Order: sequence, then C-alpha cells, then structure tokens
Amino acid sequence: MRFFSDNAAPACPEVLAALASVNTVDTAYDGDRWSQSLDARLSALFETDVKALWVSSGTAANCLALAALCPPHGAVICHRDAHIQNDEAGAPEFYTAGAKLLLAEGDGAKLTPEMINAVLAATRNDVHQVQPHAVSITNATEYGLVYTPAEVAAIGDLCRARGLGLHMDGARFANAIAHLGCAPADVTWRAGVEALSFGFIKNGGMTAELLVFFKPELAAATYYRRKRAGHLLSKGRYLAAQILAMLDGDVWLRNARAANAGAAMLAAAAGDRLVHPVEANEVFLKVTSQEAATLRAQGFDFYDWGPGEARLVVSWQQGETDIRPLADAIAAL
Amino acid sequence: MRFFSDNAAPACPEVLAALASVNTVDTAYDGDRWSQSLDARLSALFETDVKALWVSSGTAANCLALAALCPPHGAVICHRDAHIQNDEAGAPEFYTAGAKLLLAEGDGAKLTPEMINAVLAATRNDVHQVQPHAVSITNATEYGLVYTPAEVAAIGDLCRARGLGLHMDGARFANAIAHLGCAPADVTWRAGVEALSFGFIKNGGMTAELLVFFKPELAAATYYRRKRAGHLLSKGRYLAAQILAMLDGDVWLRNARAANAGAAMLAAAAGDRLVHPVEANEVFLKVTSQEAATLRAQGFDFYDWGPGEARLVVSWQQGETDIRPLADAIAAL
Amino acid sequence: MRFFSDNAAPACPEVLAALASVNTVDTAYDGDRWSQSLDARLSALFETDVKALWVSSGTAANCLALAALCPPHGAVICHRDAHIQNDEAGAPEFYTAGAKLLLAEGDGAKLTPEMINAVLAATRNDVHQVQPHAVSITNATEYGLVYTPAEVAAIGDLCRARGLGLHMDGARFANAIAHLGCAPADVTWRAGVEALSFGFIKNGGMTAELLVFFKPELAAATYYRRKRAGHLLSKGRYLAAQILAMLDGDVWLRNARAANAGAAMLAAAAGDRLVHPVEANEVFLKVTSQEAATLRAQGFDFYDWGPGEARLVVSWQQGETDIRPLADAIAAL
Amino acid sequence: MRFFSDNAAPACPEVLAALASVNTVDTAYDGDRWSQSLDARLSALFETDVKALWVSSGTAANCLALAALCPPHGAVICHRDAHIQNDEAGAPEFYTAGAKLLLAEGDGAKLTPEMINAVLAATRNDVHQVQPHAVSITNATEYGLVYTPAEVAAIGDLCRARGLGLHMDGARFANAIAHLGCAPADVTWRAGVEALSFGFIKNGGMTAELLVFFKPELAAATYYRRKRAGHLLSKGRYLAAQILAMLDGDVWLRNARAANAGAAMLAAAAGDRLVHPVEANEVFLKVTSQEAATLRAQGFDFYDWGPGEARLVVSWQQGETDIRPLADAIAAL
Repeated sequence: MRFFSDNAAPACPEVLAALASVNTVDTAYDGDRWSQSLDARLSALFETDVKALWVSSGTAANCLALAALCPPHGAVICHRDAHIQNDEAGAPEFYTAGAKLLLAEGDGAKLTPEMINAVLAATRNDVHQVQPHAVSITNATEYGLVYTPAEVAAIGDLCRARGLGLHMDGARFANAIAHLGCAPADVTWRAGVEALSFGFIKNGGMTAELLVFFKPELAAATYYRRKRAGHLLSKGRYLAAQILAMLDGDVWLRNARAANAGAAMLAAAAGDRLVHPVEANEVFLKVTSQEAATLRAQGFDFYDWGPGEARLVVSWQQGETDIRPLADAIAAL
Repeated sequence: MRFFSDNAAPACPEVLAALASVNTVDTAYDGDRWSQSLDARLSALFETDVKALWVSSGTAANCLALAALCPPHGAVICHRDAHIQNDEAGAPEFYTAGAKLLLAEGDGAKLTPEMINAVLAATRNDVHQVQPHAVSITNATEYGLVYTPAEVAAIGDLCRARGLGLHMDGARFANAIAHLGCAPADVTWRAGVEALSFGFIKNGGMTAELLVFFKPELAAATYYRRKRAGHLLSKGRYLAAQILAMLDGDVWLRNARAANAGAAMLAAAAGDRLVHPVEANEVFLKVTSQEAATLRAQGFDFYDWGPGEARLVVSWQQGETDIRPLADAIAAL
Repeated sequence: MRFFSDNAAPACPEVLAALASVNTVDTAYDGDRWSQSLDARLSALFETDVKALWVSSGTAANCLALAALCPPHGAVICHRDAHIQNDEAGAPEFYTAGAKLLLAEGDGAKLTPEMINAVLAATRNDVHQVQPHAVSITNATEYGLVYTPAEVAAIGDLCRARGLGLHMDGARFANAIAHLGCAPADVTWRAGVEALSFGFIKNGGMTAELLVFFKPELAAATYYRRKRAGHLLSKGRYLAAQILAMLDGDVWLRNARAANAGAAMLAAAAGDRLVHPVEANEVFLKVTSQEAATLRAQGFDFYDWGPGEARLVVSWQQGETDIRPLADAIAAL
Repeated sequence: MRFFSDNAAPACPEVLAALASVNTVDTAYDGDRWSQSLDARLSALFETDVKALWVSSGTAANCLALAALCPPHGAVICHRDAHIQNDEAGAPEFYTAGAKLLLAEGDGAKLTPEMINAVLAATRNDVHQVQPHAVSITNATEYGLVYTPAEVAAIGDLCRARGLGLHMDGARFANAIAHLGCAPADVTWRAGVEALSFGFIKNGGMTAELLVFFKPELAAATYYRRKRAGHLLSKGRYLAAQILAMLDGDVWLRNARAANAGAAMLAAAAGDRLVHPVEANEVFLKVTSQEAATLRAQGFDFYDWGPGEARLVVSWQQGETDIRPLADAIAAL
C-alpha cells in the first residue's frame, strides 16, 4: 500500500495496449504516423494551433521549455519549492547553458504576481545582474494546490507586461484540469502560458511526456535541442502511442479524477491535520513521528516531508478499496 | 519491405511481454528491483564488475560516456563518419559542455592506431589547442564493419599509452558480437574499452539503451549527469525490463544473428557491388540511380548513400522470406 | 570627491611605471620572464608552493577558481550577498557549465560553519539534488568585514570534513591583510583555502588580477580554461608587470593601509550610524534620504545601498585631505 | 631579432601615453567618458551606426561575436586553418555553449563562396545534423592573404541568401586595410559583414581589442555575455584609451603600413621561396631545415610552420634597420 509517489504506479491498460498496437514497421524517430498526428491532436484539445513534442521525462519537457524561453545569460523566476529548483539535479542550468533560477517565496509552492514582482524588484536592471526572461509555475503545485484560470491569467498579464515568457510545469496537469473542470485552454494559453509540460507518466503513462508550445515559433529550435539532448528517440512511435492512448476517450481525465477522488477521501479523514488544501492527488499531513510510525505499522508507506509532516500521493489505480483503509487509519490517529 | 533502418523495426515479443510483466507498483526512478539488478546482470555477462545505466537513446548513452571521459576543454577523437559527429545534432558538445571532436580518416568508418596517431600528431601539446582526452570507436561501424578484439586492443594499447579514455559506440554491438562469436569481454574491457554504449533498440528493443562502464568509478558522476539530462526516467523499470528481456536466453544474440544472416544473404547476391565487406547487418551497394529505381519499383525501400551508392539495413525480424526477394532483385540487376 | 567604488580610482604610479619598464620585445602570452616569475614570487609571499595565473578581471579569477573546484553538475555554497551571486551576471554558471550557487544567510555577507551546515542540511544526498562541491567566501566581505585566520580555519575544517573545496574571493584581500596584520598564508592555505582570487585592481592596479592555487594540481586544467575564456592575453607581460610592481616593496599593503585608514576616519565620524563594523575600506552608513542629499550637496558622491543606507568606499589614493571633509560632513549630519 | 609573432612587439608610445592620460578618477566598468565615446568614434570611422565593445583579447572578441551569431545548437563555417579552430583552445565552443565549427578547405586560409557552398552541401537539412548559422573569415588570413571588398561581398551575398551571419576575425584588420587602401566600411558592412573583431594588440596595442557590431541589435545580448565572460573590466577606461590612442591620427594605419612594408621587403628578397603572396605582415618561406638553421645562426628567430616552411611575422616597430639584415640573409641562402 504505497503512497510514496504516483511514479510508483503502473501504466494503465490503455497504454500497454497501445504499445502492442504500434508494434509494426514504421518510420524512425518522429516520422511515424502517430508522432506526426500529435500537433493536430493537441491543437484540437487546446483549441489553438500548438506544436507538441514527446520526450521521455518531465525533466526534459520542463528544461526544453525553459531553454526556449530563456537565454544562457538570463534567469527564470520560480518558486523556492519548485521541482525544477530542487529535484532536477541542475537540469535547467544544463539545458539553458547556465541560466539562473531566481526564487520566489509563497505558501504551497504557489506564486502570485506580488511574489514575482518582489523578485523583479530585487533585480537591478544592469549588466552585472542576471535579468529575468521567464516565469515557471507548476500546476498542480508541488504541494497539490491548483492555479485557477484567473490566477494564471494574473501572472500571464504580468509576464506580458514585463516581457517574460511563461512556462507551466504540468507534471500533474491532468489532476489540475480534473479539479478545475475547465477547458485545458483556459488555464494555459488563454491565461498567457506559452509552453506546457503536459505530464502523462505520473497519471498512468509509462515513459512518455509531452511538451506543448502555444507559440509555435518557440518550437523551431526545440526540435534541434530535443535531438541534441538525446530525447528524439529512434522509435518514437512508442511514445506517441502512449500519449494518444491516454487522450483517446479522455483516459487522462478518468485517471486524474480517480486519483483526485482518492486524495479527497484522505483529506476528509484528515481534517485539521491538513497542511494545505487538497485540490489534486497529494495530501500533506501534520503527524508526529509516533503517528507516522503507527500508520507505517499498518502497512502504509509514504515520505516524511520535513519535521512533523508526511506526504501521501494517490495514484490513478488506487480505488476506494485501497484508500479507505488509509483514510480510516488517519481518522483513527 | 523496408530496408531503411533497423530503427524502423518493431520491438521483439519478449520486450513487449516484459513491459507487461513489470506493470505493477514498484519504486520510482531506478530504485526498482529490475533496475537494481542490472549491475550484477551485466557484470556476469562481461565477466567483470561493471556499472550499467539505462537511458532512453543511443545518443544519451554515447554522450554520457563521452562526458565521463572528456572534460569541457578537451577533445574526443573519432572517425569523420562517426554517428556522434554527423547524426547527433551536437549532443557530444552539449553533454561535454563544449568539448571538440577531432576527426580521423579511414575506410569504412573504422579506425586504426595509425589514423588516431595522425590526429594526435597534428595536435600541438600547448594550451592554445584542444587536447585529446578520449577516443570513440563504433562497433559495428557506421558502414557495417566489425572491429576484432585484436583491432580494438591495438587501439586500447595506444589509448593507455597516451592517457586517453576509450569509448565504444555499440549501437550495433550485438551484431558485432554475433559476427565475432567472441565473449563480450574480449572486444571491450579486455581490449581497453572503458565505456560501452550497448545498443538494444535497433536490435529489437523499444526505448531502452544501456551505458556500461568497465571502470566503475567513471559511473559516479554519470548518475548525476543522467538525471541532469532528463534520462533518469521516473518509471525506469520499464527500461530495465526491456534490457533484461533481451539478455535472458540471449535474445539479443538471436536477434542480431538473424539480422546478420539476412545481410549476408544480400551480400552474397550483391557480389562486386559491395562497397564494404558485410560483417553485420548493413549492406552498402554500388548502384546506378537507374538500378536504385528498379529496386524501388519492386517495392524495396532504402536510402541512397552518396552518389552511386545505396544503404540497405536488415533488421532482426526480417527472415528469409523478406530477404530472398530483395537478394534476387539485386542479383538480377 | 567620489566614494562610489574603489574601481573609480586611478592606477598607482608604480603600476604605470611598470608598464613602461616591460615595454620591449618579449615572448607572447605568458611565456615572458615576468609572467614566468609569478609562481616563485607568490610562493615566496605565501610560504608554500603555489601556482599563480594572471587574468584581466576579478570575475575571471573567481569563476576560473570555481570551475576548478566544482563540476558542472555540482553546487557552490556562498553568501546570499556574495559578488559571485549578485554582480557577475551569471559568470559562475558560465565558467562551471551550469553549476548552481546555494545561498547561505548571515550578517555582513560573512559565513560561519553553522550557516554552511544549514545549507548542507537542506540538501538531500541523492541524485535528484545538486550536491555541494565547494564553498566560496569573500575576504574582506562585500560589507567590509574581515574573516580572521581562526574564522577561515573553522570553515576550512568543515570543508575538509565534508570534502568541499574552499575558494576565497579576495577582491579586497589586501585590505583584509592590512587589517589583520597576519601573514597571507595564515588566512588562506593554512586555514584550508585552496584557491584565492587575489585582487589588485581595486587596490591601485589597472587591468590585472591574480588567481592563486594553493593546491598546484588544481591549476593544471585552469591553464586551458583561462585560454578558453579569452583570458590568456597575448601580451601578458603587461599584466604580470602590474602585479609584480604592487608586490615589490609591499605597495599592495601600503595602498590597502591607506584606504583602510581613510575608512577608519569615516567610521570614527559616523559613530552609531555604522551598519557594520569598519574593518577594511568600505563604510555603510544609516542615513535618511535627506541626509544623503545633504552630503551630496557638498560634493560627495556615493551609492545608496537599500533604503536608509549608503555605501562609501575609500580608495588607495584618498588621503586625509580627501577624507577629512567627508568625515566632518558626516559628523555634522 | 624576433620574427615569431607580432604579439612579441611592445606597445607603441601613443598607447603608453594614453594610459597615463586617463589615469584619473572616473566611472567604473564602461561608464567612463572614453568607453562611452567608442560607439560614436567607430561609427564615424565605419560611416554607419555601430556598437563597439572593448575586450581584453582577440579570442574574447571572436567568440562573443560567434555567440551573437550562432545558437548553441548551430554551427559556424570557417577555414580548416582558422585561428578560432586551431588556436583558441575551444573558446568558440565555450562561448557559444557548444556550437560546432564546420571546416572548409582552401589555399592560404582564404574562403570563397564555392568552398562555403561545399560545406553547406555536405550538411543535410534535418534535425540530426548541426545546421550552419554563420560564417567566420579572417582578414588578413592566418597566412597573410587579404580579402578584397569584392571577395568579401561575394561571401556576404551568399550569407544573406542562406540566412547566415558573417563574422570577420580582424586580428590583423589594420594590415588588411593598409594593404587595400579602401575605406574600412568597404570590406566590412558594405560587403555583408555583421561583426568584426578589430585587432589592436598585434598592431602596437597592449591589452585592448575591439568588437564592432554593424547590426547594433546584435550587441544587446553581448553586453551581458561580455560581463559574464569576465571581460567587462572594472577599469575599462584603460582599454578604451588604448583604442582611442591608436585611432587618433591614424596610428593604427601608420603601424600597419610599417609592418606591411617590412614584410614586403622580406618578400622581395624571398622570391620563389614564398609559399603565399605577401599582402600583410606575414611571410611564409620554403626553407630546408639547413637553411632555417643558417638564418637562426645569424640571430633571426621565427617559427617552423610545417615541414620545409618557416613563418616570419613583421611587427609595427621593426623598421628597415631591423628588416634589411634578414632580407639579405634570406637572399643569400
């Protein structure tokens, strides 16, 4: 009964089936019919012309996006707790050839225009300081909070006014959309987002993530950068197939809704123990080390998240049967 | 009837089956039991202690190896026709943070100590010139030639004497071993190779390649570089499973032998048309554009390879039924 | 009457004279007799075998040092107010090929082992996080504080215990030594410093700074990196000459003592207005904007340094005649 | 009697005098009046609006120019014997974050549109190959040949047609202009050059080189890159002063004419021994090792330049008294 990470979850059956269905001779790299269909398929989903590139990790998607938005001598503003700052081993610096991340403060890893403005105000506009070129936000955030279209639009307006690019790390984008119930366009390009890391792996995929550019011209150099980073896989159809399988019939939303529902069940049981509101599939609890041990003794695995806190992540395949015992155990603490 | 590229081939059934077999909850990244078993499994295969890291492309394997062997201010000697020079979009320069490739001449993309010495002799040993730190050879080469253990050992001796690292791009390593019939150790570390890109994808794999370090200490920084490059996939067990499935029961050799046999059949039909001896699964033919058109009119697809030449690549799943018609068509030209 | 920056000061007469004295035909780059004498000259000064490389800016000295101590996938711990973080336009990230700076807190831009340990404790030792490889401290600090030999040694001990390199940004090293009165060795290698950016320009030099390695092996790759960064000047003797002229007869200490004395005179006048103790040649004052205007109306120029503060920097050539009027004006506020 | 390199020559008296003349308190970095005057001064010289940035080496000027013209994933076409390929220790790869140099063939290190077209034709226009973004030519070339305005314009036309930037390495630009007798504009921007490394050091300067952008917008990011590379010197007025001193009264042309005249005297003596026509200040001679020894025995120092060749470089301060003995010695061989 693992609640460590949605990366621990298996791939959903549609993904496995899709791999078998494309297991024929076809063109190498991204020349196959499935890869070639992605632009159109995602343009339909997002109701605008997009460029969509598969890669094999969220880190690659994020950092290709950042490299498209920020030159080597520039900076990207992100939250202090952002995945790109803490959990990608310096990949942003690698892909951008040395850009800096400028860190903003804020509860729940969620940014506001005020927080971004505080970073901007701390930067002198001279040649001695690294100048911000982009903002990166995570939706749902690293603490499971969801930006609404209006919240993103407020940041998007600031970015437009200040000439900054706007990237959304959507490792849990499906969970955010499942929570919001809005059109994917509403919380992305309509709100000013220029590049989206559209996550599939945590949500029931296997090895395919998607980078979506809402400004198609941003993609031009990215095709080269993807190859140069070793992410233009030679049998790319097996990535395209995973993505298409999850878009077909809205499997991506089905999976995300299931995970969100599980987290909501835990949240209901947790009550005042919640560190953050539960809006996606992550639950952060205040627990003593004694209480954490009690839960673990019942077979529930999860990460400690700083002193006195625990992180529980629900994944797409954990149904009520899996969740109920943990919810009960939490309520019983 | 495609003879464009072994990347066009499907994955072999064992690989697909393996994906299903690991499709359970397990630890993320490379913490799962399959990924964790790779060092031991490959150490057994190579009869020495190795470190083995999966990645999702041959480009990533090659360039992580080069980054382990060459500092940003150094150079790697390779053949003018090497894949790392011509077909990886500058990935070596990206991964090494700007090292140079110094190009050697030689027939069939195959290097000898003499060719490497010619490059070394052309480099002044002063601070104004980029100094060689490593040699990279491809086995089987980009023209389908296979280095013997003795040939590699001659290069390995030179490298040792000159303090150079030695990398082998084994995108078609299986085809080389199938041709040589030797132990994998003989043509790698026993001959001085320090890092091997062990290719699986062209040989019936799907999305998993393997980087093998015969000097385990070279791997230490590579774990960080892999993550930093976005190649530490979050569900790495699906890569490990592909590799293990192809090692089990020597599927990798079975596949490579089949491809080599098909190429040999074409070679026998081609006779004097051969540009290079056929030792692996690639066949380079002298054909007029008229003759190439004749073959294509019969449904055979392949790449032109410079004026008057064509490249035919046989893949693991092309049996005699697939090959015979092409062999006959070549003989009939 | 400029108190903006010691970079505004002219070069001292010995430096100008030295340029004329080497203005003859000699070997290019660093092959001339003056450049070749630096290792021995600095080894004598520091009482140990060092390697000493001239460069043309403090940024180059700092960042070549960092690149010698930290790999592209690593991190350097420094103070939040460090020059390398705020005033070098991302040069550390450029020279190191993307290493991160991890920021420590602390008054007066001065670090203690506790502050460094706090950063270390916040870094998980796994492949997802950038691992610290070095610490960089500035002596005198960006706020004019001086590390004593014991304070540096405490950091040096921590670095040794944790396997971290230790760099000292000595843009105002001369001012620190003038304040401490100790041997240069005491506050550098004897205290664990491995690389020193030994500043001359702010202290009466013109265009020459010096990078000193106390571990000679660290210099090996730096000769290449210096050339690669465009800092192996083709007529290097004009840099060597500046440095030698300032070492001869301890001009460097004479200049620093003069500047420190001027700052001390201002400090005495400032009394409670001091934000930090004045230990080198920088004075930070609490002043209202009204008071700042009053000083400026009398012809004194300086930078505001955040709200309610002003920075006054005294340089080597500002004698009592220059300082007294400002001291009086401050006292009269 | 050194004919090794024009870098061995001293600085001319005007340069030394200029250093003394600016040795006063002024604004740091490039905020001083001399640095601030460069754009206008060079715009007048080149008869168009330019941006002019001092740096402290030709390598820095060249590589900042390349970084402005070529992205990290691109390539620069240059001659196989170009300084940027052979004598800058990988600085182009460093400054561009990993761009490749694609090498063209041609006599005397001089390119023609045909040679550039041959490189372009060898590059497939796909994502697997590094795509050319710029061309770099050296005027005068590494073998002392001078491009005429028409020759540059032919390359400039090709670059414009193919969307390539055009850089001129003018380490010996003064020698080229002295030979051509044309307006500096004619062989630069009027012929399609976008960025010029305008060399002063070899021609009697001390530590200042100049980067001139004929497309001012190319300079915007370069101000940041210069700082980031450690080439925004803190007392930049001492670089500006050197350049201004050599522009005033056409000292740069006077010096270059003197060096060219000396080389012409040697060329006249050398007759059939000349490997290349002598158009600037370099003379390449066919000499046996016996003959080279004979010259050296008479006190003449120079570099061997491959088997059977010697390179003699005349510098600005070598008058007839210095040259005549060598000319006679060559004639007497």
